[in-house]
Amino acid sequence: METKNANFGVIGISGRGAGMLRELMAVPGVNVIAVCDKYEDRARRGAEIVKEAQGTDAAVYLDYKELLARDDIDAVLCCTTWITHGCIAVDSMRAGKHVAFEVGGAASVEECWQMVRASEETGKFCMLLENCCYDRNEMAIYNMKRLGVFGEVVHLEGGYRHDLRHEICLGRENRHGRLYNFMNRNGELYPTHQLGPISKLIGINRGNRFLTLCSMASKSRGLNAWIKKNLGEDYDLADYPFNQGDVVTTMIKCAGGETIVLTHDCSSPRPYSRNYVVEGTNGVFKETSSGGEIYLDEFHEDGEEWKPFPPIREKYEHPLWRQYARDGIHAGGHGGMDYLVLSAFAEAAVNNLTSPIDVYDSAAWMAVTCLSEQSIAMGSMPVPVPDFTNGMWIDREPYRRGRYCLDEVCEDFFPEA
Amino acid sequence: METKNANFGVIGISGRGAGMLRELMAVPGVNVIAVCDKYEDRARRGAEIVKEAQGTDAAVYLDYKELLARDDIDAVLCCTTWITHGCIAVDSMRAGKHVAFEVGGAASVEECWQMVRASEETGKFCMLLENCCYDRNEMAIYNMKRLGVFGEVVHLEGGYRHDLRHEICLGRENRHGRLYNFMNRNGELYPTHQLGPISKLIGINRGNRFLTLCSMASKSRGLNAWIKKNLGEDYDLADYPFNQGDVVTTMIKCAGGETIVLTHDCSSPRPYSRNYVVEGTNGVFKETSSGGEIYLDEFHEDGEEWKPFPPIREKYEHPLWRQYARDGIHAGGHGGMDYLVLSAFAEAAVNNLTSPIDVYDSAAWMAVTCLSEQSIAMGSMPVPVPDFTNGMWIDREPYRRGRYCLDEVCEDFFPEA
Repeated sequence: METKNANFGVIGISGRGAGMLRELMAVPGVNVIAVCDKYEDRARRGAEIVKEAQGTDAAVYLDYKELLARDDIDAVLCCTTWITHGCIAVDSMRAGKHVAFEVGGAASVEECWQMVRASEETGKFCMLLENCCYDRNEMAIYNMKRLGVFGEVVHLEGGYRHDLRHEICLGRENRHGRLYNFMNRNGELYPTHQLGPISKLIGINRGNRFLTLCSMASKSRGLNAWIKKNLGEDYDLADYPFNQGDVVTTMIKCAGGETIVLTHDCSSPRPYSRNYVVEGTNGVFKETSSGGEIYLDEFHEDGEEWKPFPPIREKYEHPLWRQYARDGIHAGGHGGMDYLVLSAFAEAAVNNLTSPIDVYDSAAWMAVTCLSEQSIAMGSMPVPVPDFTNGMWIDREPYRRGRYCLDEVCEDFFPEA
Repeated sequence: METKNANFGVIGISGRGAGMLRELMAVPGVNVIAVCDKYEDRARRGAEIVKEAQGTDAAVYLDYKELLARDDIDAVLCCTTWITHGCIAVDSMRAGKHVAFEVGGAASVEECWQMVRASEETGKFCMLLENCCYDRNEMAIYNMKRLGVFGEVVHLEGGYRHDLRHEICLGRENRHGRLYNFMNRNGELYPTHQLGPISKLIGINRGNRFLTLCSMASKSRGLNAWIKKNLGEDYDLADYPFNQGDVVTTMIKCAGGETIVLTHDCSSPRPYSRNYVVEGTNGVFKETSSGGEIYLDEFHEDGEEWKPFPPIREKYEHPLWRQYARDGIHAGGHGGMDYLVLSAFAEAAVNNLTSPIDVYDSAAWMAVTCLSEQSIAMGSMPVPVPDFTNGMWIDREPYRRGRYCLDEVCEDFFPEA
């Protein structure tokens, strides 16, 4: 595909935002002309980063609406908090710009519908930047599923099991939004890291959809214990009654009969894990601390034992990753997947395509957060998941227009792979 | 404790029943005088096993009520199917005998109440033989929890993930009851292997209780796929619409605020796992294919990485296992735990004590099966778990009368450990 250029604005220059800004400018065709943050120091830092990378002077805004008022911006990257990025995404589309934003769940179902309506009415795309969809393991597993290695997939598990006690508890000092969510909410606050790849694996919004979910939260103890141990018994949040349970489990039933179990687990001491499990009639993959394990029916003669996943991954490497490994992996951003998801965003923006993660994906995945809050508030009642496609999921075709497509493996784009 | 003798009757001499009969007779103080099975070949085989082990002639019955009518039997071991052992347990207690039976869930809540009433009214104990409560890992983890290693426990996971496709699908040929359950039911059919140890860990029925649960079932595909591959497309069950979903997930909320997630998973190709996870404010244990991994806050300086559990287990070995290893492990029965659970049963029966797994434990754990069926039938609605103690759980003391107690570590019984 010929490389054209497009002008980008970036809203939200936190630590993560700054990293994403740098990574975005590494993608061919991207020209960042404006940056914005409500904190002036962060906004100015954004301009410095642009200067370093592009040698150009980006405009600096403290009010994102002023950035959106410009008519020379094609697309917006938004890295603001979980409870602001939905609104900014809608405003971006209404201002005639494609938009992509960092992951995080929705605060309300209505917010999701607003994104859907804005995208449908403006023709602009709305892309949740779910980098884990482009993780090397996840893409290989997608490829394996496509080739029938797992047989018929019946059950999936995923989690966001990440010890964030330090980051959460020092949220005021670090101007980080997680703290306020953990103080006030109780739900699957961060569902999409594994739900994204799972959804693509089982064709959500393209032949399949989420029907219902129910969630259950454990008691909240981890943050108080951490604060007392690390900040002292007298710290003002030492006995704060955090609403967010330490572990929140969510079960999702799909129209295709699959079940998905998600675990949100950020207040306990543990190494990082996304807890990926794919279970089918021919075999099972599960994430482990050593790169994953797999068992397939065909291994039976070697004994009923897991085999290490890495050699299997090599065999089934996704063509995109085969090419990426040959071209040079941008390993700085989460092992390379940040560069891929931003490349997907840029490819779609520069060429005015639909994004491979579209507004229906974004809405369905993000809605899990507010729906899980509802379920927990009602004692784990099952709640229906809205069909944001209004029935189109039944016969929506896979997205095929770009090398970063996630609905199938678009071999045409990888002639050498 | 002085070794007395007691007379036992054994009902149900399937493959598993025969193994349990053998293991029971290895326990000091046990004298088996009667065996019963509705299949005559199995009943006679039982008598042969008794002859080999004890050198005595056991009475042989085809009707268990005739066995129960004898007044020289102190206790009954019952290894019949999931939908018959509850009734036989009640009849045993009503006939003045202590009773223990092989694991399996309840078919109805009423069945559990019948066991409770029978035990309360007769003073006879009713013990689910949950061998996994006596597993070496589980007992070490119990010991660690007691010593505060995990801090406050907030969340637990467990599963019965066991590829039983061969056993289930050939249930008619092998006279095995699982097939009929998978044909007709849909629920957490086998909850207790991990729920037992979990319940003891968090004091269920002694200061804690299950409040509600909800369950979700995936589609059923594994058995049909296995039959078609192994028995042929024309086999009469090849397209049988099995009710049991391949993977059933159950979330349980406890009065103490803990959450428990159980996974029933017997129709997919996979190595065996009970999927044990214990999560507390100080650290996390998780079962792995290499004997488990653990992370504790105190490991932080070594990097945020899991450590192998076996050396930690050695440090925190439960005194019962320390002694057992010194005395010689009866490793034939599931790595030694069968012998321990039967020893617990025999100790209680011979000395006329309460059993360490009592009727309230048995009822609460087994009820999860029928409650999960109800929840699934109602679209994963949360259902209340009955309090089989009628409020006594609030201040019931731990059971301490015997070396096999599971409610605390009774150090007095292990002077050398």
